[in-house]
Amino acid sequence: MVVALNNNAQHQVVIIGGGFGGLYTAKHLAKANVKVTLIDKRNFHLFQPLLYQVATGTLSPADISSPLRAVFSKSKNTQVLLGEVNDIDPKAQQVIMGDKVVPYDTLIVATGANHSYFGKDNWKELAPGLKTVEDAIEMRRRIFSAFEAAEKETDPEKRRALLTFVIVGGGPTGVELAGAIAELAYKTLKEDFRNIDTSETKILLLQGGDRILPHISPDLSQVAAVSLQKLGVILQTNTRVTNIENNIVTFKQGDEVTAIASKTILWAAGVQGSAMGKVLAERTGVECDRSGRAIVEPDLTIKGYKNIFVVGDLGNFSYQDGKPLPGVAPVAKQQGEYVAKLIQKRLQGQTSRPFHYNHVGSLAMIGQNLAIVDLGFLKLTGFLAWVFWLIVHIYFLIEFDTKLLVVFQWAWNYITRNRRSRLITGKEDYVEAKTVNNITQIAN
Amino acid sequence: MVVALNNNAQHQVVIIGGGFGGLYTAKHLAKANVKVTLIDKRNFHLFQPLLYQVATGTLSPADISSPLRAVFSKSKNTQVLLGEVNDIDPKAQQVIMGDKVVPYDTLIVATGANHSYFGKDNWKELAPGLKTVEDAIEMRRRIFSAFEAAEKETDPEKRRALLTFVIVGGGPTGVELAGAIAELAYKTLKEDFRNIDTSETKILLLQGGDRILPHISPDLSQVAAVSLQKLGVILQTNTRVTNIENNIVTFKQGDEVTAIASKTILWAAGVQGSAMGKVLAERTGVECDRSGRAIVEPDLTIKGYKNIFVVGDLGNFSYQDGKPLPGVAPVAKQQGEYVAKLIQKRLQGQTSRPFHYNHVGSLAMIGQNLAIVDLGFLKLTGFLAWVFWLIVHIYFLIEFDTKLLVVFQWAWNYITRNRRSRLITGKEDYVEAKTVNNITQIAN
Ligand SMILES: Cc1cc2nc3c(=O)[nH]c(=O)nc-3n(C[C@H](O)[C@H](O)[C@H](O)COP(=O)(O)OP(=O)(O)OC[C@H]3O[C@@H](n4cnc5c(N)ncnc54)[C@H](O)[C@@H]3O)c2cc1C
Ligand SMILES: Cc1cc2nc3c(=O)[nH]c(=O)nc-3n(C[C@H](O)[C@H](O)[C@H](O)COP(=O)(O)OP(=O)(O)OC[C@H]3O[C@@H](n4cnc5c(N)ncnc54)[C@H](O)[C@@H]3O)c2cc1C
Repeated sequence: MVVALNNNAQHQVVIIGGGFGGLYTAKHLAKANVKVTLIDKRNFHLFQPLLYQVATGTLSPADISSPLRAVFSKSKNTQVLLGEVNDIDPKAQQVIMGDKVVPYDTLIVATGANHSYFGKDNWKELAPGLKTVEDAIEMRRRIFSAFEAAEKETDPEKRRALLTFVIVGGGPTGVELAGAIAELAYKTLKEDFRNIDTSETKILLLQGGDRILPHISPDLSQVAAVSLQKLGVILQTNTRVTNIENNIVTFKQGDEVTAIASKTILWAAGVQGSAMGKVLAERTGVECDRSGRAIVEPDLTIKGYKNIFVVGDLGNFSYQDGKPLPGVAPVAKQQGEYVAKLIQKRLQGQTSRPFHYNHVGSLAMIGQNLAIVDLGFLKLTGFLAWVFWLIVHIYFLIEFDTKLLVVFQWAWNYITRNRRSRLITGKEDYVEAKTVNNITQIAN
Repeated sequence: MVVALNNNAQHQVVIIGGGFGGLYTAKHLAKANVKVTLIDKRNFHLFQPLLYQVATGTLSPADISSPLRAVFSKSKNTQVLLGEVNDIDPKAQQVIMGDKVVPYDTLIVATGANHSYFGKDNWKELAPGLKTVEDAIEMRRRIFSAFEAAEKETDPEKRRALLTFVIVGGGPTGVELAGAIAELAYKTLKEDFRNIDTSETKILLLQGGDRILPHISPDLSQVAAVSLQKLGVILQTNTRVTNIENNIVTFKQGDEVTAIASKTILWAAGVQGSAMGKVLAERTGVECDRSGRAIVEPDLTIKGYKNIFVVGDLGNFSYQDGKPLPGVAPVAKQQGEYVAKLIQKRLQGQTSRPFHYNHVGSLAMIGQNLAIVDLGFLKLTGFLAWVFWLIVHIYFLIEFDTKLLVVFQWAWNYITRNRRSRLITGKEDYVEAKTVNNITQIAN
């Protein structure tokens, strides 16, 4: 049985994805004279910029999530549907979710992007990435399990592999993970073990390009590198991972090939448009770039379809300085707002100017009292930048009713250096690091 | 390779289990002239009395957990090991964890109890119970998925089954779950859906005995029943579940047999000693009761073994009023403290009086502004009891650095009636209620 979930005379806007792009589109349509259907496969919006704090034991998933239904509870023109869209039919103007169809007059596709393993999909299990709540819980499980297994390990070589963490990718997420693990090993956990000395922990950050945080200016990037090294992180730029297997990661810097034993390899590199990009390409003929992102028109529609928009990470918008806009939250938000306004103008017979991204600045957190802020006209490092980072993130969380909660936890964490959310949960084998990297039990 | 993890001249105390029993034993040994090894298969102590608030979306797992390593960070005589004990060797005085052994001079077994499905172990999947963090996340997933699936369901009969919740067991956990789901359906979620009216939700609480909360006095139990009914819960006492399958739960009240369609059946009945009870029986010959709890001597040792103690839910202590002490946190805590003191006295050549449980009172939460307090000399109901419940629980959380956080969230929840932690996470199929109760997709 096929059921149409919309049958209304009003203009029907369907938004696929309740990430930053979809959420902001819907918010800016909440008072418009249209009917909005927001579809997401998860029942919550996720504040991904703080996901690394879940992965390293500072925050809980609910602290950085906002139930979509609660967000739109009072927007009576908006219905939220939990469901995974698997197809669209642009001729019939329908979105397909399993055995259900949702008709639309205007469609916004905002399903975001995932990591890319550059074709090495078998690395996924060996070196998990960070995109969902489940990813964060899994990273947390691996990180804390490694210390636990090391505490019980008597073979020094195996212990060393357990206390070696390799992070692939020197963008903001890689840097944030490396910094947080360094603080964990060298500060938080220092007194907690009896058989190991966590200060022997080795943390490697591997970056393909010639500097970390390539999106900020070279001088700030240099400050970040030095700060990370001071924290104890071993930084390798111009380094490409060539193999991951059996808890051995192999990488190449120039002609030099190194293989190192590590039980915890974390992936923070690569971008790949989500599956809806492929669906769009098949159904509408829209061109996608090498990363699977749909190339959009200046007004964020796709070629030949005035009523289909792509916003956020899934889109490739290259009309400013020739390069695609970066996959960051402000781009998704501004695009969402732009499209919401465009739809309303259109219904009133007005036209809109092309989308223009207004870049405000870049931030990166390195560790306690240590961050980098690049606003172009203003550059901050160290403690001041850290305070700035905090304020900005608190401000961004303004629409989350968890804001005060997060602040409270940060303050607590700051004072005690404790990580209260360091639970090893989820998988059955929370006890042993048995399946860490999918090999046999460590402690044989 | 077998590795002994202890080799020390000091008196070695090994504690299996970091629940209330084991935690309090270890805490009261933290300054003693003994070496303590606390083994748990989880890396955190869990405050089970608030687990239902995780299952119904008020709190996050980390809010009611305390990393064991952090608790004992400063107790330098105490080592924490993450591991599952699978055997003991009382002759060699060793605890066995996989390929590792831990020698002991004194052993405390505090591994607790689980639910019992009274031999119907296939009901476990169909009607999950509440004991671990994972259990709570799974309940939460089922509860919120049911509302989500109902929103998309167009068949009225299927919709009714999705909006029917059956809770088996009228003890504190069953009552707390029923009350919390009622508040969710009739208050929190009321404005959040567009296609369903959550006030049509049906919540059944099935109790085998003739009244709910049998551990408190009959008059208070009656007050609780009336309060629950006022909240909208349908209460059936003297009711035995005879079958669960295919989302149909069948139960018998007297001669009357009823079968009702429900997609969410939750289990809050039965007690079964944890697996270590069986191991103990096999290795030491200690007698277990019908629920698999080890029958202990007046000093909490087991017959024939002066250096093996059982504390908490795993023990059956029947020297006060002939009945076994109830499986509640205060019993476990008092027993832990008792054993810790006994060990120290023994090392000084002194003897101890038999254990005596000092019952302070019983509490149960029904809903906002609604609780039951039975201190014997003082009985409270309604708002006053609710405030009392809050204060007591805040006090109990005193050793958790999450106390303020929990209070904050309760206050927030109280003011907004929101449930910020209502994430559907964990399993791959967070989208559809597909595998709710393990049958085929609902929405066909
Ligand atoms: C770990 C991490 C850290 C980051 N840190 C920062 C940072 O510090 N600053 C910054 O600006 N940006 C940061 N970003 C990038 C930022 O999060 C993204 O640019 C932004 O989320 C993009 O928004 P979006 O709406 O395009 O996609 P997303 O926010 O990813 O949302 C996509 C939504 O679509 C849903 N969805 C996907 N497929 C389907 C389907 N088939 N059917 C239904 N629903 C579907 C998903 O469930 C999701 O809710 C970070 C990203 C990550 C992963
Ligand atoms: C949902 C729920 C609600 C409750 N509400 C209340 C309440 O409101 N008030 C109240 O007083 N009591 C309540 N209780 C009961 C209370 O939680 C128990 O009485 C108490 O936890 C018993 O303490 P324990 O130390 O014996 O066992 P537990 O606290 O269960 O601890 C056992 C520990 O042993 C570990 N373990 C088990 N097997 C092994 C193994 N083989 N190797 C290593 N480690 C192992 C477990 O991981 C666990 O940490 C509730 C219980 C539940 C489940």
